[in-house]
Amino acid sequence: MIPFLDLSRVNAPHMARIEAAMQAVARSGWYVLGSAVQTFEEAFAAYVGVKHCIGVANGLEALTLTLKAWNLPPGSEVITQANAYVASVLAISQAGLTPVLVDPDPATYLLDADRVAAAITPRTRVILPVHLYGRCTPMAPLRALADQHKLLILEDAAQAHGATQQGQRAGSLGHAAGFSFYPTKNLGALGDAGAITTNDDQLAAQLRQWRNYGSSQKYINEVPGHNSRLDEIQAAVLSAKLPFLDAENDHRRALARRYLAELQCDDLVLPPANTIDDDAWHLFVVCHPRRDDFRAYLHQHGVGTELHYPIPPYRQPVYASQWSPADFPVTETLCRKITTLPLSTYMTDSEISVITYVINNYR
Amino acid sequence: MIPFLDLSRVNAPHMARIEAAMQAVARSGWYVLGSAVQTFEEAFAAYVGVKHCIGVANGLEALTLTLKAWNLPPGSEVITQANAYVASVLAISQAGLTPVLVDPDPATYLLDADRVAAAITPRTRVILPVHLYGRCTPMAPLRALADQHKLLILEDAAQAHGATQQGQRAGSLGHAAGFSFYPTKNLGALGDAGAITTNDDQLAAQLRQWRNYGSSQKYINEVPGHNSRLDEIQAAVLSAKLPFLDAENDHRRALARRYLAELQCDDLVLPPANTIDDDAWHLFVVCHPRRDDFRAYLHQHGVGTELHYPIPPYRQPVYASQWSPADFPVTETLCRKITTLPLSTYMTDSEISVITYVINNYR
Ligand SMILES: Cc1ncc(COP(=O)(O)O)c(/C=N/[C@@H]2[C@@H](O)[C@@H](OP(=O)(O)OP(=O)(O)OC[C@H]3O[C@@H](n4cc(C)c(=O)[nH]c4=O)C[C@@H]3O)O[C@H](C)[C@H]2O)c1O
Ligand SMILES: Cc1ncc(COP(=O)(O)O)c(/C=N/[C@@H]2[C@@H](O)[C@@H](OP(=O)(O)OP(=O)(O)OC[C@H]3O[C@@H](n4cc(C)c(=O)[nH]c4=O)C[C@@H]3O)O[C@H](C)[C@H]2O)c1O
Repeated sequence: MIPFLDLSRVNAPHMARIEAAMQAVARSGWYVLGSAVQTFEEAFAAYVGVKHCIGVANGLEALTLTLKAWNLPPGSEVITQANAYVASVLAISQAGLTPVLVDPDPATYLLDADRVAAAITPRTRVILPVHLYGRCTPMAPLRALADQHKLLILEDAAQAHGATQQGQRAGSLGHAAGFSFYPTKNLGALGDAGAITTNDDQLAAQLRQWRNYGSSQKYINEVPGHNSRLDEIQAAVLSAKLPFLDAENDHRRALARRYLAELQCDDLVLPPANTIDDDAWHLFVVCHPRRDDFRAYLHQHGVGTELHYPIPPYRQPVYASQWSPADFPVTETLCRKITTLPLSTYMTDSEISVITYVINNYR
Repeated sequence: MIPFLDLSRVNAPHMARIEAAMQAVARSGWYVLGSAVQTFEEAFAAYVGVKHCIGVANGLEALTLTLKAWNLPPGSEVITQANAYVASVLAISQAGLTPVLVDPDPATYLLDADRVAAAITPRTRVILPVHLYGRCTPMAPLRALADQHKLLILEDAAQAHGATQQGQRAGSLGHAAGFSFYPTKNLGALGDAGAITTNDDQLAAQLRQWRNYGSSQKYINEVPGHNSRLDEIQAAVLSAKLPFLDAENDHRRALARRYLAELQCDDLVLPPANTIDDDAWHLFVVCHPRRDDFRAYLHQHGVGTELHYPIPPYRQPVYASQWSPADFPVTETLCRKITTLPLSTYMTDSEISVITYVINNYR
């Protein structure tokens, strides 16, 4: 049996460091916005290559708080892709803004500048590309649109820790970026955690208020802030793991390279290989026209899989009737065909060999 | 030097259990809404004496999510007291509802049923009493009002873990209650944590969706939920500390009893003593007409103090111009006179003796 993901194996090599980090925080007697958070914020900002990192409670809050801190006119439109995780869309709604969904590029599953251009209205204020599955969205055409229409770009980098584009890291490619350190992410905490990265001094200061009941000075509350702080313990765990992120991503790349070279199964569509060295390979997503049968076969043969994501945001009950599925033909096809194969830092060459063998024998 | 509060001393007696609890979670490989959260939820529900406990990210979220889950008409009014922590008011705003503030009872600093009665309008839906400083709000008259006007009662029990009223615990006195396990609370985590307690099955089920992206079934999102989960690590720490809460509250009571018996200083007003055995003595708040001078004197003599709270919510920049301070004469006086003395689980009789000596020599 090869499970889809086993986080005890992900964290096992770090366990001694993790336990020492947790113990140091526990014994310090300081548990909220202390030195562990600051140390991680500085290290992660340096890693991403930006001036500021602001630790927050999770990835959904990272996006929501950034959109709130920008203080856009109510009803402003935010354009994002139709095929990503529901959190990106929830963030837009929760900030009191209007999500505008567009179909992704069918080759990369990423936000497509042509479709964004067609969706821009006078109310558009933000473009929100999701670096889905660990692959950076092509940013040059989005930047051109943003410049032309005076829009802000908020990267959703929750799946792209360490991914690069022309030598720059995800999280440094727009005006601000939201990260999740949900435990399954490439850089994962032992619970919920998130951060925003940005070069904007003013935004950074505002976010430090927004995450702390709207307060930057004790006893004074300036904005209707959240309680959304990165825990000291989680920050210490993340600091213990960050130095190994690049090596772990290299291992993911090596495994992805083997899948790409060795998977040979009729009708199976593999992810694009042209950006293999830049991608963070958070999820290895394949398409098969008989997806459910293909998955059942894999499970029968002891290979775990997941779906990212079978029901797009516009079909969720929470958004029922706001959109018509017919407007998203690419996403409609994808969500019925995609499945995610096991790919994680701890996996061995022989596990990849077994999975490849099983898949290549599927008829 | 006696600091206002030193959490390393609060947690020292629990440290071995805390470290074992954290280690067990770290090694388990399961970090989100797993068995540690469930175990704590069951234990805390039993402790409070209700059917359900729903762990969430913090105390502000506990209140906000409950108000959202009740799904009240937009613009519904929530009546709460003017002199509590800003979070209770932020929760009301963030749920899209209208906070209606009333002055507290000048003797107890708690929500006053007569003033609540006078503030009820056809749009009122909720009464939100804050069991401030660890003392339960007199609930009988509030319940009568709630019955008469078909209102819901949301207790803010963030400062009242273990406090009782007629044998029932804070958290079981209304339709639902929000708790904070902020590290300084009577039951404190090592970071942010919170919970809702309730006997309402439907509300409990809805809150389990609201805290988890609006989802109770994988891949399906029913409501515009938050990411607001109690971390497994924090839940495990809380479970390790909960069995000692009653004994720790007893110790707080013993210290409060000494302050009440021994503090003798002109113009110093002590907290009410009539409910001494019921109160959880989260904060020991005294009033002095020359508060700032009194505090400076204490600090000069090595006694730390804090203020809970010097600037009421209606004077905060975030709410500027929504209220007129003249409408809250009790709070206006209180916020200039109150100061909080050290009182914590680890404090010794000799520390109380020193503080009493210093105060009783103030002129
Ligand atoms: C683009 C984008 N933007 C914003 C967000 C929002 O960020 P957030 O608020 O921080 O969640 C996301 C989050 N995205 C993720 C989403 O991709 C999905 O991630 P996932 O890896 O499929 O998560 P999962 O189903 O919980 O776990 C996958 C496997 O991992 C194993 N596991 C899991 C857990 C939790 C464990 O403890 N131990 C395990 O062994 C069991 C499962 O087989 O679901 C999560 C709840 C979201 O946080 C995103 O992708
Ligand atoms: C009625 C009511 N409703 C809702 C809420 C909201 O709940 P929440 O969202 O969970 O915060 C509150 C929160 N209420 C509290 C509020 O009472 C106040 O609490 P406080 O105990 O005065 O907190 P503090 O000033 O951070 O710390 C006091 C002393 O403790 C020491 N300390 C502090 C920390 C953090 C540490 O790690 N180590 C230390 O040694 C240093 C300080 O001298 O400020 C907090 C930020 C709120 O969470 C409330 O009172």
